[in-house]
Amino acid sequence: MERRYFLKGAALGTGATVTTTLAAPAIAQDSRDMIIVSTWPRDFPGLGTSAQRLAKRIEELSNSELRVEYYAAGERVGAFDAFDHVAAGEAQAYSGVDNYWKGKHQAFVPFAAVPFGLTYTEMDAWMKFGGGQELLDEVAGEFGLKNLPYGNTGVQMGGWFNKEIESVDDFKGLKIRTVGDGGDVYAKMGASVVALPGGQIYENLISGAVDAAEFVGPYNDFYMKFFEAAKYYYWPSMVEPGAQLNLGMNRAWWDGLPTHLQNIIQAACNEENSIAMAETNANNGLHLRRMIEEHGIELREFNDDIVQAMYEATLEMTEAWRAHSPLAKRVYDSMETARDEVGGWMKLGDIGYSNKRNRVIGL
Amino acid sequence: MERRYFLKGAALGTGATVTTTLAAPAIAQDSRDMIIVSTWPRDFPGLGTSAQRLAKRIEELSNSELRVEYYAAGERVGAFDAFDHVAAGEAQAYSGVDNYWKGKHQAFVPFAAVPFGLTYTEMDAWMKFGGGQELLDEVAGEFGLKNLPYGNTGVQMGGWFNKEIESVDDFKGLKIRTVGDGGDVYAKMGASVVALPGGQIYENLISGAVDAAEFVGPYNDFYMKFFEAAKYYYWPSMVEPGAQLNLGMNRAWWDGLPTHLQNIIQAACNEENSIAMAETNANNGLHLRRMIEEHGIELREFNDDIVQAMYEATLEMTEAWRAHSPLAKRVYDSMETARDEVGGWMKLGDIGYSNKRNRVIGL
Repeated sequence: MERRYFLKGAALGTGATVTTTLAAPAIAQDSRDMIIVSTWPRDFPGLGTSAQRLAKRIEELSNSELRVEYYAAGERVGAFDAFDHVAAGEAQAYSGVDNYWKGKHQAFVPFAAVPFGLTYTEMDAWMKFGGGQELLDEVAGEFGLKNLPYGNTGVQMGGWFNKEIESVDDFKGLKIRTVGDGGDVYAKMGASVVALPGGQIYENLISGAVDAAEFVGPYNDFYMKFFEAAKYYYWPSMVEPGAQLNLGMNRAWWDGLPTHLQNIIQAACNEENSIAMAETNANNGLHLRRMIEEHGIELREFNDDIVQAMYEATLEMTEAWRAHSPLAKRVYDSMETARDEVGGWMKLGDIGYSNKRNRVIGL
Repeated sequence: MERRYFLKGAALGTGATVTTTLAAPAIAQDSRDMIIVSTWPRDFPGLGTSAQRLAKRIEELSNSELRVEYYAAGERVGAFDAFDHVAAGEAQAYSGVDNYWKGKHQAFVPFAAVPFGLTYTEMDAWMKFGGGQELLDEVAGEFGLKNLPYGNTGVQMGGWFNKEIESVDDFKGLKIRTVGDGGDVYAKMGASVVALPGGQIYENLISGAVDAAEFVGPYNDFYMKFFEAAKYYYWPSMVEPGAQLNLGMNRAWWDGLPTHLQNIIQAACNEENSIAMAETNANNGLHLRRMIEEHGIELREFNDDIVQAMYEATLEMTEAWRAHSPLAKRVYDSMETARDEVGGWMKLGDIGYSNKRNRVIGL
């Protein structure tokens, strides 16, 4: 596995231990190395391919002034070591979801996904015109990072169930695979939450070791063949309504870039933000249809009582999140203001229109 | 008013009449002029400012290899002359909505807005991963153009009404200001459609010369002070669910650009597509709230009967649109496939989630 450490780390004053395994290359005045360590496996559909496309695009748009090297999870550091690696200046950037760094600061979470939080369009409005980016700069700044959104998973599915969920009681004792805050919500409702890597979900559903499993959405779930392993596909995920993907950069490195290259990185992130969501929505549509038509999956919807119970469990957790620190409180408050204000518009706009249109066209 | 014509037009074989009012500048090998003629007034909130930001960004990202000059509507040519001006090679690009060019080809319309058509997110999925861009290349290619999406108005509002619309009969004889295909739908329902420039809407609502007027959405409508001139603000616009904004370029010029500069233009368009929608959604949310809280506007929703009647009027028109030409038929069919497939996913995802979330949080 190729390993090349950031040669200029020490010069930027990051104090990183620098190991040079190659002779220092001649560096043109306008050329710079940008090593990106990812939290995604190589070529993972959507999440992995999007991060790889972003890396390629930064180099391309910069006309190779930035020489980008991309390492998938485990190729240089493990997924959960990416943050420290970049903060220490041993790489220039990581790509991932910032709720991985909840242990660093609770205020990272709303910049990824929060139960009953923002959809992709609401998140974009908050980040770019509702004060979100400025707050992320504060949070990331505490760790010497500069983070920019470059995509989103979009709303996820509720998951694959071998038991029907018709009342809140049906969650009691349910063995469900999930990760993150969603798991805490289900645990509060009496479920037994199991953490399993994605690659072990199928066999555990088949064997009955778990009764249910939440993964991503139709595009990713299709290729995992979960439709062979569970009876019911529940919608939507109330606890993970779209995880924003961020490029987290070493701030000293970012600050040292000429404005022109900062613009290139910013533009590549905003472009990928648009492309990745289009790719996911198109592929979710296609693969949902294929699972219905070719594999006869049964769709089920979480009913009102269950959604209400999930929300009440979430509210119990919300106060603890805010109580973490004044900064966490400001971030959660700002996100909720955006949810009310942008969401209030979307209710009449995209949501209101879609509900009415879908009814008459029979969708 | 500054006027500088494209100096290299004739060299590209476009046969354009070239008027030089400045001495020809020394052109660096890697520098190119890009004149953009817009269909929007200068500084018009959202539509105008977004097109201006795009122009600036293309120059910035290209590190001034592309020298961009932006002319708002009327500063170089009138809004409706932009297409011919670019097709003739007298400018490199226009910014606008492609349903302006319905008279050139019916198949341009679905790349802007169609009654009961695609929302912004569905449009993105269709354009980028559902065959939309390839079809737009065919349509625009017939006129020597290469068109790229760079934004969207998002779902629009139904408009400002001084009469309550409680049944389909209430449309009969209603004097309503609107433009485009939406006007044809209302006319089929018995309304008397009036074409008025935006700047004359307010006085005509006040005087009672029109009973109702559709313009854009909360952000733009706020600054037009329509809340002073009409009683009811109806949602949503079923006939203009989001007009896509396109950069239409002279194809010979585009084809002659090095890949690096094509990438820059493509990235700037995709970036602006993300930014413009975030700006509109954030501002629609803010200004909707302000109109409710500060100006006590009354929101009204088109009821099911009315939406059904609008849809039936639209269906009558659809066959004529398809019958225009085999290409128009392919474009409309492809758009409807995307509406069913991507829309089918969105119904469970963004729409399904938002409906359930909004109910429990009381939005």
